[in-house]
Amino acid sequence: MWPSNALTERLKLKWPIIQAPMGSASTPALAAAVTNAGGLGGLGMWGRTAEQAARRIAGFRQQSGGSLNVNYPIWPDPRCAPDITEAMQRQLQPHYDAHGLGPVPEPKGVISDLGQEQLALLLEAKPEVVSFHFGLPSKSLVERVRATGARIMSSATTVAEARWLESEGCDAVIAQGFEAGGHRGMFLATDAASQVGTLALVPQIVDAVKIPVIASGGIADARGIVAAFALGASAVQIGTAYLRCPESRVSAPARAALSQALDDSTVITNVMTGRPARGIPNRVMREIGPISADAPAFPHAATGLAPLKAAAEKLGKVDFTNLWAGQAVRLGRDIPAAELTRGLAGEALARMRQLAA
Amino acid sequence: MWPSNALTERLKLKWPIIQAPMGSASTPALAAAVTNAGGLGGLGMWGRTAEQAARRIAGFRQQSGGSLNVNYPIWPDPRCAPDITEAMQRQLQPHYDAHGLGPVPEPKGVISDLGQEQLALLLEAKPEVVSFHFGLPSKSLVERVRATGARIMSSATTVAEARWLESEGCDAVIAQGFEAGGHRGMFLATDAASQVGTLALVPQIVDAVKIPVIASGGIADARGIVAAFALGASAVQIGTAYLRCPESRVSAPARAALSQALDDSTVITNVMTGRPARGIPNRVMREIGPISADAPAFPHAATGLAPLKAAAEKLGKVDFTNLWAGQAVRLGRDIPAAELTRGLAGEALARMRQLAA
Repeated sequence: MWPSNALTERLKLKWPIIQAPMGSASTPALAAAVTNAGGLGGLGMWGRTAEQAARRIAGFRQQSGGSLNVNYPIWPDPRCAPDITEAMQRQLQPHYDAHGLGPVPEPKGVISDLGQEQLALLLEAKPEVVSFHFGLPSKSLVERVRATGARIMSSATTVAEARWLESEGCDAVIAQGFEAGGHRGMFLATDAASQVGTLALVPQIVDAVKIPVIASGGIADARGIVAAFALGASAVQIGTAYLRCPESRVSAPARAALSQALDDSTVITNVMTGRPARGIPNRVMREIGPISADAPAFPHAATGLAPLKAAAEKLGKVDFTNLWAGQAVRLGRDIPAAELTRGLAGEALARMRQLAA
Repeated sequence: MWPSNALTERLKLKWPIIQAPMGSASTPALAAAVTNAGGLGGLGMWGRTAEQAARRIAGFRQQSGGSLNVNYPIWPDPRCAPDITEAMQRQLQPHYDAHGLGPVPEPKGVISDLGQEQLALLLEAKPEVVSFHFGLPSKSLVERVRATGARIMSSATTVAEARWLESEGCDAVIAQGFEAGGHRGMFLATDAASQVGTLALVPQIVDAVKIPVIASGGIADARGIVAAFALGASAVQIGTAYLRCPESRVSAPARAALSQALDDSTVITNVMTGRPARGIPNRVMREIGPISADAPAFPHAATGLAPLKAAAEKLGKVDFTNLWAGQAVRLGRDIPAAELTRGLAGEALARMRQLAA
């Protein structure tokens, strides 16, 4: 048996392995497989209506009686400077023309995902964990989420962010290292150039807070899991390795890109959504980025690319598709999520014993 | 006792802890203290004449009968485009004027450190390990170094670099993660934006080569050491933590900067020397960098800053001083090197046992 700790006991986990909720790539089947195998499955609710979110949770409940983590991105009402909008329109228009899509649309005023309807849903569906990215919603919203009975978690990319999350009442903090795929959770930090690698970040956050620390970023096999525990983590969050499971929602060409990626194939970009995120370079990242001062504010950049993404994907191309992946993508395996979860847990336990022998 | 492995046996180390040779900050007293405490002490020979290098090795031998690692940077004859030289001169001239230093000097044609005189020295002084940074010298030079009886090591920042070092006959490879302070060892990799965090890099290099892998980058306490072993490393190389020892050659204001640095205080810059290196931002990094397309080729950028550095340091300022440090600088302690080495070894061993309990 894996040695239990405060976090695994609180969340009733057999293994201290959390599947990263990963926005659109997560599915009820993936989350249920992980939870049923003894880990914590998660569903990203990025850009979902309350109705869609309810369907996703119901799908999970049909397949699992265990714990579920639902994840919401949080961001202030984004405003887009007109000159930035113009610059991006100039850069994207040739691609819109090539696909016969007309003019690049104006940025839409999308606001943060956690509205009244979503709150009502949480009260009804009672997920065991509600996690956030890019900080936390307002104190009163956090209290209303807590009142549903959910444990609350969010990501920190620096010690200062971890301290802030603890002071705001988070039950656990996800230490998100530089290696992690997808969006950097940075919300106090403003400079992606000073983001911290997992090996350095985890022990410094463990020293700074009293709440349990979940290590994430670059963890894709048993070696990474044992390393995270050596650093003082109470659990690990794994994203990219689960992307390669058949249960995740990843298109065939994106899967091919993941399976061919090497240790140094990913970079941090802001051109896909407006916020720094790690992925495999696609055409638009190569042409405009990976980092551009002209990228519209999150999530406007994604809105501008959405029609191109859809048109190109119909042709089997990933020119405008987010190919989020972390730096350990190479260590992943194309196996079902339950097998992966149990394999990781068993191999990590064996490796811990071997290390002390 | 620490479990021995091929690398520690070969180098006759009691502990698998290698003090990073760290250019000018390393001293014979530091290296001897580490070796005498059971680790492997190192001396950087960056920019040293053969005579100076000989004195450094003699100083070590007076204080230790154990193993020594000497380190040389390797780079092709650098050429500086005239427009880059002009741009940098424009940026530095106001600082030269402020210190009454006259015109910014033309870049000097410094070439790689390992010349005939240094080779003769190695043949005479027979250091147990000769390590390189930025790749390796020519095959014939490597063979002549090997003929002195030295084990040969170099740093890899990617799997491809590690494979190349193995194919060129390195006895061990140092996997240098993104977190590491000082110069990135990159020599095949050209894009600092795709450099890999230690937690992701070490296991991928372990999978790719048969020679022993030494983990470096973000390791400053027992937790990092155990994590490195969990990832498959045969030893760790530690730099920044040794900078804080009294035996290292670090000025008082630079020491103050190190002791105040936080997890996210360092960035990678190319303006100090012309090659990407991680350190605490100083005045010139903030004004011109941290990354600038106008930075002259390595090591010309450093040559241009040297007079300013000396003038400012006389005033107790670190405006132009390399404040190299890794992302775990906060985990360091101001204690003697022998105490640090023995403490790290003992605490790591205890933590390994605790992890499996």
